[in-house]
Amino acid sequence: MTGAYLPGDSTVIMKDVPVPSPGHGEVLLRMKASTICGSDIRCIYHEHLGKGPEGYQGVIAGHEPSGQIVKTGPGCRRFGVGDRVIVYHISGCGVCNDCRRGYMISCTSEKYRRAYGWQRDGGMAEFLLAEEKDLIHLPAELSFADGAQVACGFGTVYEGLQKIGISGNDSVLITGLGPVGLATGALCRKLGASRIIGIDVVKERMQLALDLNLCDEVLESGQDNVEEVRRLTGGMGVERAVDCSANEKARATAIRATRKWGRIVFLGEGGRVEFNPSPDIIHDQKTIYGSWVTSIWLMDELVERLVRWNLHPAELVTHRFPLDKVDQAYTLMASGKCGKVAVCFDEEL
Amino acid sequence: MTGAYLPGDSTVIMKDVPVPSPGHGEVLLRMKASTICGSDIRCIYHEHLGKGPEGYQGVIAGHEPSGQIVKTGPGCRRFGVGDRVIVYHISGCGVCNDCRRGYMISCTSEKYRRAYGWQRDGGMAEFLLAEEKDLIHLPAELSFADGAQVACGFGTVYEGLQKIGISGNDSVLITGLGPVGLATGALCRKLGASRIIGIDVVKERMQLALDLNLCDEVLESGQDNVEEVRRLTGGMGVERAVDCSANEKARATAIRATRKWGRIVFLGEGGRVEFNPSPDIIHDQKTIYGSWVTSIWLMDELVERLVRWNLHPAELVTHRFPLDKVDQAYTLMASGKCGKVAVCFDEEL
Amino acid sequence: MTGAYLPGDSTVIMKDVPVPSPGHGEVLLRMKASTICGSDIRCIYHEHLGKGPEGYQGVIAGHEPSGQIVKTGPGCRRFGVGDRVIVYHISGCGVCNDCRRGYMISCTSEKYRRAYGWQRDGGMAEFLLAEEKDLIHLPAELSFADGAQVACGFGTVYEGLQKIGISGNDSVLITGLGPVGLATGALCRKLGASRIIGIDVVKERMQLALDLNLCDEVLESGQDNVEEVRRLTGGMGVERAVDCSANEKARATAIRATRKWGRIVFLGEGGRVEFNPSPDIIHDQKTIYGSWVTSIWLMDELVERLVRWNLHPAELVTHRFPLDKVDQAYTLMASGKCGKVAVCFDEEL
Amino acid sequence: MTGAYLPGDSTVIMKDVPVPSPGHGEVLLRMKASTICGSDIRCIYHEHLGKGPEGYQGVIAGHEPSGQIVKTGPGCRRFGVGDRVIVYHISGCGVCNDCRRGYMISCTSEKYRRAYGWQRDGGMAEFLLAEEKDLIHLPAELSFADGAQVACGFGTVYEGLQKIGISGNDSVLITGLGPVGLATGALCRKLGASRIIGIDVVKERMQLALDLNLCDEVLESGQDNVEEVRRLTGGMGVERAVDCSANEKARATAIRATRKWGRIVFLGEGGRVEFNPSPDIIHDQKTIYGSWVTSIWLMDELVERLVRWNLHPAELVTHRFPLDKVDQAYTLMASGKCGKVAVCFDEEL
Repeated sequence: MTGAYLPGDSTVIMKDVPVPSPGHGEVLLRMKASTICGSDIRCIYHEHLGKGPEGYQGVIAGHEPSGQIVKTGPGCRRFGVGDRVIVYHISGCGVCNDCRRGYMISCTSEKYRRAYGWQRDGGMAEFLLAEEKDLIHLPAELSFADGAQVACGFGTVYEGLQKIGISGNDSVLITGLGPVGLATGALCRKLGASRIIGIDVVKERMQLALDLNLCDEVLESGQDNVEEVRRLTGGMGVERAVDCSANEKARATAIRATRKWGRIVFLGEGGRVEFNPSPDIIHDQKTIYGSWVTSIWLMDELVERLVRWNLHPAELVTHRFPLDKVDQAYTLMASGKCGKVAVCFDEEL
Repeated sequence: MTGAYLPGDSTVIMKDVPVPSPGHGEVLLRMKASTICGSDIRCIYHEHLGKGPEGYQGVIAGHEPSGQIVKTGPGCRRFGVGDRVIVYHISGCGVCNDCRRGYMISCTSEKYRRAYGWQRDGGMAEFLLAEEKDLIHLPAELSFADGAQVACGFGTVYEGLQKIGISGNDSVLITGLGPVGLATGALCRKLGASRIIGIDVVKERMQLALDLNLCDEVLESGQDNVEEVRRLTGGMGVERAVDCSANEKARATAIRATRKWGRIVFLGEGGRVEFNPSPDIIHDQKTIYGSWVTSIWLMDELVERLVRWNLHPAELVTHRFPLDKVDQAYTLMASGKCGKVAVCFDEEL
Repeated sequence: MTGAYLPGDSTVIMKDVPVPSPGHGEVLLRMKASTICGSDIRCIYHEHLGKGPEGYQGVIAGHEPSGQIVKTGPGCRRFGVGDRVIVYHISGCGVCNDCRRGYMISCTSEKYRRAYGWQRDGGMAEFLLAEEKDLIHLPAELSFADGAQVACGFGTVYEGLQKIGISGNDSVLITGLGPVGLATGALCRKLGASRIIGIDVVKERMQLALDLNLCDEVLESGQDNVEEVRRLTGGMGVERAVDCSANEKARATAIRATRKWGRIVFLGEGGRVEFNPSPDIIHDQKTIYGSWVTSIWLMDELVERLVRWNLHPAELVTHRFPLDKVDQAYTLMASGKCGKVAVCFDEEL
Repeated sequence: MTGAYLPGDSTVIMKDVPVPSPGHGEVLLRMKASTICGSDIRCIYHEHLGKGPEGYQGVIAGHEPSGQIVKTGPGCRRFGVGDRVIVYHISGCGVCNDCRRGYMISCTSEKYRRAYGWQRDGGMAEFLLAEEKDLIHLPAELSFADGAQVACGFGTVYEGLQKIGISGNDSVLITGLGPVGLATGALCRKLGASRIIGIDVVKERMQLALDLNLCDEVLESGQDNVEEVRRLTGGMGVERAVDCSANEKARATAIRATRKWGRIVFLGEGGRVEFNPSPDIIHDQKTIYGSWVTSIWLMDELVERLVRWNLHPAELVTHRFPLDKVDQAYTLMASGKCGKVAVCFDEEL
């Protein structure tokens, strides 16, 4: 089979490798959809920057895979040939405290914690070898491209929103309208948020958020954002804010534009934040949550809700490529002139 | 002025009494809307059954009042002549621990805890004397009849729903579709509930819940309700249940039709409940909340949300009467062949 | 090796069986301590009453095992020969939503959910075959008898106490002072409870709770318990109550003796409960939690805390027997004239 | 009577003023204890720095007052002559949403929000005029100096600890061991914290924390604090951290020394904070709470708990002065070479 590798100089290399054979507790997937995450570009594509859990070890790329089981190894207990599945993007040891909570992302085993597409072969190939314990059932109502979107982005957003709680009681501010920010808008809408305000610097993204009805209002990033948000919310500020930008100023805006007793969650990765605790969080009794990826069981719940809501994450995919044009997919994603970019196979191409 | 009294034999007596004059911290309201609560019928109208906090002390009836300030006594700090207001239906001492939490309903002062319409004059008169501390601002977007609905029913429901948490994550079961059950449907809809199922015995109420789009499905009360709810929810049961019936069997249904890890809240007053803890709550890790009325500050928040949601509680009012036909209002409410019944004045009649 | 079987007529049968050999992901334990749970007596020893998850399938008894690894099968990732371990008492499929949350007790796989000592061989033998995913590390500071206590009773209590929250803010009522009730006292003490009140019918148990300093006050079960608890708590009632009795009257006492805004958790299995929602939970804004066993990761946290607290669950063990006198152990436990009863091996006998 | 005023040049002026007479809803207190808060020194004593809610308006100083009622105005409902009371240190309008939650500290009325000792006469005089709604009953078991400590510092700490939750499950880090930090140690101890670690720069304070058994370990502020805390907690970090320092580096230490899934609360006022969200809160799923003062009803609960715990906040008072030596009290407090400093009267001098 053919797999895509990222040498770290903004190119993609295709290699022919043998189709792997599933061992105990493993399955072989026929790949159907594999989306590109911002972190693939940031930490691998241009240059191999990451270390430890973010270190790329020369494997087949792609950590948002979805496909269909074509072969199972011995010892599989739930999933079988023909099952449509999503792959939780980190394979942990399964037996440390964090894995047992379902947060394989935080697996403490140096030996067994391996992210698909980073430290073990990922989804940018015709087949993928996965552990059964990393699989989530993909219902017939959802496409494989929907599933690929769940594997990383939508799962991460859902966890953050569970932490701060979103309902019809809440107006929500989203700072950063990239794929994660757009997913936030989509999920807040379904959770019942009474008003969704987005902030970004890129006009195309702002327009996309409006066109897809993921935000009610969008603001261009600037000095007056806090005042603008207050003006849109009767002078009060939003009940909830979600930072998807990792930008220092945007994070401070998220904190400051939040109402008394409100909650802010940070999802965007990297960078720093600075603020003045007394006016910014103490006097208004605010709370700031850090939130990282999600547990495999909450991801499973999310899939159940997507069906209930008739919400299709693949609607955020603006461009699809076949595997043999995967280099174009990375080039486009690196340019930023797009929504979500997917490599698709067979019926979903 | 004229006021309506309830002698306890299913009649209403009208009496002429002097218009009261507001003392320190008090205001005089021109009444605009005064709705009838199920508890007025149950505990006063037919017979004076209540004791203590539910004892009727021969005062002007009506504990769901809304009106406009026409005079203020000395010492008022926030409200003034012309202000449109809702009256929290219990006037507490204001200085015990419960009042300080905003739960005047639970005021521990035997001397000062007096419910409007039960132990101090209520809203079934041309004017009402109220304490400033019991008032909630009624925004221009809401009618006085909307406000009267908040004073008791909608406030009680909102508190219960805050306790169990309702969002787009949740399908909700409502047992009992009287005014409180209908209010539950209306608020769950705005909080984002993904599916609302109602159960009642009265076909007219069931139809009303559908006609007003307050439930997605309605079931006739019966032996198979638990199974029916499970069938409607993919075999899982609902994430949240709200009992508004006070009926023993309906309460057990609410518990049993709730999903693993789910939450149930009891709002309906009176009666008993019986269940088997191991299968009913222990093995499925469920939680049952008791919830009584609400705090004045959460009622205030609810009013803010009603405006935001463009939700008008008065839509549940099916019949309006002038004060001089208040006897017909009580007769109709006692018959049960109606939604909510209101006595209205001036522009809202 | 020799194993103990329970034919269901209040006797024990010893059989010679081959020492099992660990397969993929399995380990072989040299047994060190195996305690008897009330449910073993209730559902198996006297008569095979249980069905489904409580059905005894003629296996080696004992679902509270602790021992040392002497052999590992292929595929083990964390535990190795020589490790001292506790066995979570239910082996689930590991890949359903419940198992992924760590609640193997709620595993939804009919095929793979098997409790040790009920549907797969348990701890009343010289060796035990266990799955690596069911193991919890037992630190050197704790004895194997401590570990056996964690496997079922202490873990169950810890989960319930996490649900209702126990700190120095709380006085706690415990209804039922059997092993689970005593464990509740021991954990509440370490969590900081400001006062612990116990209720039971058996004078020996009441005295034991005082002697071990697990309760500050003990009351004999009776009509006046609610009043007595109120008297001991300044008229208020307790902030938290834990039912470990499964007794209908005791459960109602637990609810009624709890203070306004308080929380009650039901741990005791079986039977029914009946109460009057308005006075019992609605007017005092109380919450009732059902809680079943615990997750394997919270059990792991409990072990960490036991070391930190220098708390030794084995202090509740009043009698120890060697495996060849296991029949005497069950006879004693069935008599109720004891605390916790253990079968111990080697250095812990 | 004589009252102490703070002209803002590090001196105190004594003036003779008439004894005030209580109006409607007001009481006159004979002062018994009045402690000095760090904010009095920071914002008033040296220079009048504060604005808005922190602006000093030339009134009698002292915002931590406790005394005995000698006269009541008309309209008092709960408190009477002879009652021993604490004064919540902010008098709000009583009828805005924040006051109705009990958080008079956040009163939104520009006209009626007045802090005792800042915008209305405070406790540094023989008598104090207070509103009944601001009073908390001081039980016989507590001294007036205990009560004065509750009015600001202990109440603020208790609120913060309620937000993050403290029990025997938690080891706690306290950054800053001034009066607020010491109060944190005292309350964490009673809430059951399993280990308390303090950090400060002043050796005398560190020693005091150990001498009073308010910390188990104290560390001198420095570069290695995060590592030191980890070493003291088995490599994990603390479950909870409380910043009482307002120091930028100490705040970052509080965040970084907290364990995965842990919670941090900021109580110390002023300054800024800077950190790196990904490693500091996102990857470890941590939460940061802002917390300001407390509600009057939680302050009331704290007083109940102090009695239950036999905890006497006045033990942190290291120096007592009579009113005519109040200048010495402020001089000492400004020097920092002390614990808490109190002006006391009559039996408590």
